[in-house]
Parts: sequence; structure tokens; C-alpha cells
Amino acid sequence: MELTQALQQIQPSYIREILMDAQAEGVISLAGGLPDGNTFPIALMDESLTSLPQKPALFQYGQTAGYGPLLDYFRTQFQLPEHHESLVCTGSQQALDLIARAFVNPNDKVVMEAPSYLGALQVFGLAQANVISVSQQADGPNLVELESCFAEQAPKLFYAVPDFHNPTGVSWSLEVRQKVAHLCQQYGVTLVEDVPYRELRFMGEMLPLVSSFCPESALVLRSYSKIAAPGMRMGVVTGKAEWIAPLVKVKQCADLHSSIPMQAVLLDLLNHQNFPAHLETLRAIYQERYLCLAEQLTAKLPQGCHFNPVEGGMFIWLTLPECDDFALAKAALQNKVAVVPSSVFYKQGEKVTPALRLNFTNATTDELVVAVERLVAVIKAECKVI
Amino acid sequence: MELTQALQQIQPSYIREILMDAQAEGVISLAGGLPDGNTFPIALMDESLTSLPQKPALFQYGQTAGYGPLLDYFRTQFQLPEHHESLVCTGSQQALDLIARAFVNPNDKVVMEAPSYLGALQVFGLAQANVISVSQQADGPNLVELESCFAEQAPKLFYAVPDFHNPTGVSWSLEVRQKVAHLCQQYGVTLVEDVPYRELRFMGEMLPLVSSFCPESALVLRSYSKIAAPGMRMGVVTGKAEWIAPLVKVKQCADLHSSIPMQAVLLDLLNHQNFPAHLETLRAIYQERYLCLAEQLTAKLPQGCHFNPVEGGMFIWLTLPECDDFALAKAALQNKVAVVPSSVFYKQGEKVTPALRLNFTNATTDELVVAVERLVAVIKAECKVI
Repeated sequence: MELTQALQQIQPSYIREILMDAQAEGVISLAGGLPDGNTFPIALMDESLTSLPQKPALFQYGQTAGYGPLLDYFRTQFQLPEHHESLVCTGSQQALDLIARAFVNPNDKVVMEAPSYLGALQVFGLAQANVISVSQQADGPNLVELESCFAEQAPKLFYAVPDFHNPTGVSWSLEVRQKVAHLCQQYGVTLVEDVPYRELRFMGEMLPLVSSFCPESALVLRSYSKIAAPGMRMGVVTGKAEWIAPLVKVKQCADLHSSIPMQAVLLDLLNHQNFPAHLETLRAIYQERYLCLAEQLTAKLPQGCHFNPVEGGMFIWLTLPECDDFALAKAALQNKVAVVPSSVFYKQGEKVTPALRLNFTNATTDELVVAVERLVAVIKAECKVI
Repeated sequence: MELTQALQQIQPSYIREILMDAQAEGVISLAGGLPDGNTFPIALMDESLTSLPQKPALFQYGQTAGYGPLLDYFRTQFQLPEHHESLVCTGSQQALDLIARAFVNPNDKVVMEAPSYLGALQVFGLAQANVISVSQQADGPNLVELESCFAEQAPKLFYAVPDFHNPTGVSWSLEVRQKVAHLCQQYGVTLVEDVPYRELRFMGEMLPLVSSFCPESALVLRSYSKIAAPGMRMGVVTGKAEWIAPLVKVKQCADLHSSIPMQAVLLDLLNHQNFPAHLETLRAIYQERYLCLAEQLTAKLPQGCHFNPVEGGMFIWLTLPECDDFALAKAALQNKVAVVPSSVFYKQGEKVTPALRLNFTNATTDELVVAVERLVAVIKAECKVI
């Protein structure tokens, strides 16, 4: 059977392949976007999980929009206005896919920063969107490029990860947030604000959501994969009711609804009195690992390599001297350290900055020290640096 | 924001609306396709559910194809040949959606029996397929129509529910199964065999899967919503590896993977020594309810109404004298019995047989007796029969 034209365009995910090899004996993986399994708040979910057998109603079909009490929680927690709604999704990945299916016709224009989240590139690729890239700076997207793109091309959506961007770790400044919100309103572009890493800020000050400056022009995607547990597949999208309704309609086709027992367990977790303390612990662990990785890189990297410090999230973006980033990542894997080459984060045909995405949340500090040694040896060999 | 052209074509699901109203105080619902919540094998899942906190690895990201041990179970249980694979889905509804997204371009031809499962009509509608209907007889699709359709129109897929069809309850004869498999092979049409009700046979003899006669020309969709619990959202699609691989690729965009804790609990349930006994009990309960509903209808229905007996599943298909089936269903709801009018099971513009789908799995026998009284009163008033 021939594949759809849309699917024929999608490249296989090199990350998935790397993640397979990264599981080999002795490999230290800085490749995935995995939270540390030892940090999962299982103890806080214990009572909720063990009480599931006493709640048979959770096992019946439910509403597509989500488990009622969880939707109520979101309304309060996110201070949603009366005319906004939530839709619980099978991970925030699904929210992104539903948005593309509800609003993006083939050739519709979608703006993204380059580099960008691979999963979003795949979703908009499958939707056959015309993806337009704007370059990213240390404090967010290049606003001159963004405005001329909005003005000249009239895109439908701007997909953005303003807090601890994947893969670069960039967090937008307050000024950029306000300006982007203004541009979205001015040019009638819908902001898709994806904030899976927002709660992982371990330094600096939390800044308002971009969408808080343009709530009627935005859809916000939140994930519980980084602060609860990804295996549960829980995410939520919020926005104007008139935009959530079509997402519900597509989700009805896609999977009827997400697992109700998982939604109930998530709600109990979010309401647990010790959940804020769990977040504090998580941030402290990730900060320690980030500081270790940053220190090791600073001490050992050869010239021509560079990274900007981050204040949260899961990644360091290491730019490299001119080199074949794929070959480098493969050589690193042979030297038992897994990393992701920058090419996978750009749409096809785009100019790629040679770089590596380094995850610091799923390896111990001891492992990070060894990983940097292995990586530096490979960079020196492959990039012909001193 | 304007909706995609694909989504603009999708009608809101009248069933979802009815299901909302069907929950009103005092209404007896024969409308949904809900299993009886009291039959859920919660006791058999108790140990598995309460041991989840001891299995933190289940809460990490997993493989898109599914939880390894569950995939192993499927390989053995379904006796999959070496070159076939399974993909665990968020309900079998997702499997159907993935198939449409991987293989159906706009205007590609998809054959379905009329009437047909509403969720499939929606999925193929969203894929902008050219849906071709063949009529259904008491033992399956009209084979003459089917063959000329295959021969003249060269469709890509034939979507079918051969065991206790939704909405009609029809189960294909052995001869029809063999003939359809032969036609699919002969004309290069892929059979999408959807068997959510297959395990709910309470009378007669289980017949082979249609796909057992054409394994290289079929994708099989199984659901655990009717025999385990729908709130968990667990289904699986099996078929040739070369057809499963693209489904995995689309699922990676759609939701990365389905809930791993739910997959682990499902596996424990399927392996539980008392699971076969649970199925026996379930079938006995549903048989009793079916026999009650059939008896009540036979005794009380006015002339011009008709239904064929069923040997399993969840539905009786009650054909009516010429009438407005929507108006009838609305009047029934006012008389506190919820049913689904036949129109929703046909694609737009198709000739509709006036009928009602009556579910017998989610009401007690006492409720079924009252429901038939209420329904018959409405039919007599609305259809102008004696």
C-alpha cells in the first residue's frame, strides 16, 4: 500500500534511533529529553494509584475534553477566563498534532524558530504546512525577521517554546515576550506557546507567559512529562473556547479521549500538599547537574566550541567549529556517549549551525564528568580543533 | 482562525450530544456503546494497579510501538508470523485514525458497509476519503456489489466490522468471510478488520477472522474497551511489518506512545488466570440482557418494526416504518429513553433506512423492560402505526 503524500515527506526520527543505541551497555546518554526516572513523584502518587480499584467509574468511557475534576482544576489553576477552555491530551505532543489537524491546511504558513523542536517539525511536516523559519537569538526570536515575516507572509501560526527552548535552552526576555505578543495581535497570527520546561527554572526569575500578553491570540500547551512522569502521557491545551471546540472534534476522531485513570492520578498528584516540594527538589537536582555539565564543558572544551548558560530546562546547546555534526554524533556514540546532532532540529534544506544538544537531566554528575571527557576526545578528533 | 477544509466537512457527533442528554435523571439509555461498568474486571486488575508504585520504570518514556512485554504477548496470543508486528494504540479508534493518516490521501477510495460505525465515518471523513458504500445483508456485505465496486473503482481499503457489526449487529457467515478475503486478495484491496465486539459472542460458534484467510492483505484492529475497560484507552493493530512501520511513524507525531502504566495493567489482566472466567460472566450477563430486550420488543412492537436476532455484541438494529428517525429519537429522549437514530450511521447524502440502534449492555433487564414500554409508546405516536 502506498503511503500518503504527507507521510512520504516525513523523515524517520534520528533521535529515536540514537535513543535505541544510547541504551547499549556502558553508553552515557545525553541524547534523549528524558527526565530522571529516580525523580518521579511515585511516592506522592502512591495513595492515588493504589486506590484506583476503589474507583471503577474511572474505567468507563469519559468525555473527550477530559476528566471533569481535572478540567475544573485547570480552570482555577490557570485562572482561565470564562470563555476559555481546556482539553486534556495524550501528552502535549497530541495537543500540537490536534492544532495542526484542526487549523493547518496544506501550504498554510507556520512560523518556527530555527532550530526547533523535532516533534513540532514532524507534526507540521505531516500537516504539509509551509514552515517558515526565523532565526533565534540569545533572548528569543529575531524580532525584525519575525515582524517582516508576519507582515509579508501573513502566517497562520507561530509555534514557540519561550521557556528553555528545545534544543537551545534559550529563554525569552520580558521585552521579547511583550513584543511577540503585540506582533501576534497586530498581524492576526495565533501563537502556539509550548511550555513543557517552564516549571524547570532553577535560576533567575520566572517570567510571564507570552500568551498572558495576548490571551485571545494564543493556544498554550502544557506537559506533565517533565514534572510528573512521561509514561502517563498527560498534557493539556488551553485557549479560547471557539478554538478548543475544533480540537475536541479532532480528538474525538483521534482517540475518543485520554486515559481517565491516568487523569485522575495526575489530579491527585497536582493537589498533593507535597507536590510543590517535589518541584523544588527536582529543580535542585537538575541545577546541580547543569552546573556540573557547564563546569566540565568550560574546563575541557577545545577552542571554537561554545555554549550559552541556561537558567532551567533540560538542555545545553553546544555550538561547534565547522564539522559534520552527524559524523560527530556517530563517533561519540562509538566512544560511548550519546548526543543529538543539530541537523535534526532544522527543516530540510535549511542552513544548519553545527552543534550538539546535550541533555543534563538523565545522567548523574559522575556520569556527566565522564561523558564530557569522552565527548571532548571525539570533538578534538572529528573537528580538527586543538 | 479558520478550520481546515477537512474539518469543516465533519458533522458534530449527534451521539455525543445524545449521550450528554442520556445522562439526565430518570433517562434509561440504550444510546451509547457503553459496556456495563459493574462488569469491569477491577478485581482482576487490583493487584496490578496497587503494585504500580513499585514499578517506576513504567512511568518513563517508552517505545512508540508499545510496552515490550505486551507486544510479546500479542505476538504469541495472535500467533503473528515473523514478518507481522503489533502497535499498541490509545484505543482501537486511534488505530483507525493512524491507518487513515498513513494510507489515505484526499479522494482515495475507501469502501464501507452502509450503515457503518460512526467513528470510522468521521475518521475517513477527516482524511477526505472518497467513501463508497456497499449495502449490508443478514450475513455480511452484498458480495455482488462489493465485487463490482472492487473491480470498477479500485478502492484502497475496505473497512469492515465482521463480528456483531455496529450498528446492525450483523455477523458475517463463514462463506462471506472467505469470499471477501478472496476478493481483497484478487483486487489488491486492503481489509481493515475492526473486531471490538468479537469476544462478546454469547451464542453460536466463533468464526475465523476474515483476515485469517488473507493475512497479507489485512490490518486487524482489536479493542480492550469492551472486554477490559474503555477508560484505559487500550487497543492494538496488527499486520505486515511494512504496514505497521508507517503507523508507528504517524503515532510518533500523534502522541509519542500510549500510557505505559495502562499497558502494563492490561497485560497483567490478560495474563490473569481468571480472565477467561470474566469473559464468560460478561457474555452471560449480556446474553441475558439481549434475550430480555429481544423478548420485550417481540412482544410489544407495533407492526412494521423489525429486528434480526444477534448472537453477540452490544446492539439490536430496529428497523421502522417510514418515519423521521431523528424526530423519533428526540421524542424518545423526552419520554426518558435514549436511542440513536439510523441517520448518524450513514454518510451524508446516502439513502437512510429508518431504524434505531438499541444498546443492551448498559441497562439492567428491569430497565430494559421499562425502556421498551417507553420506546414503543413513542414509536406508536411518531410512526403512525397501530
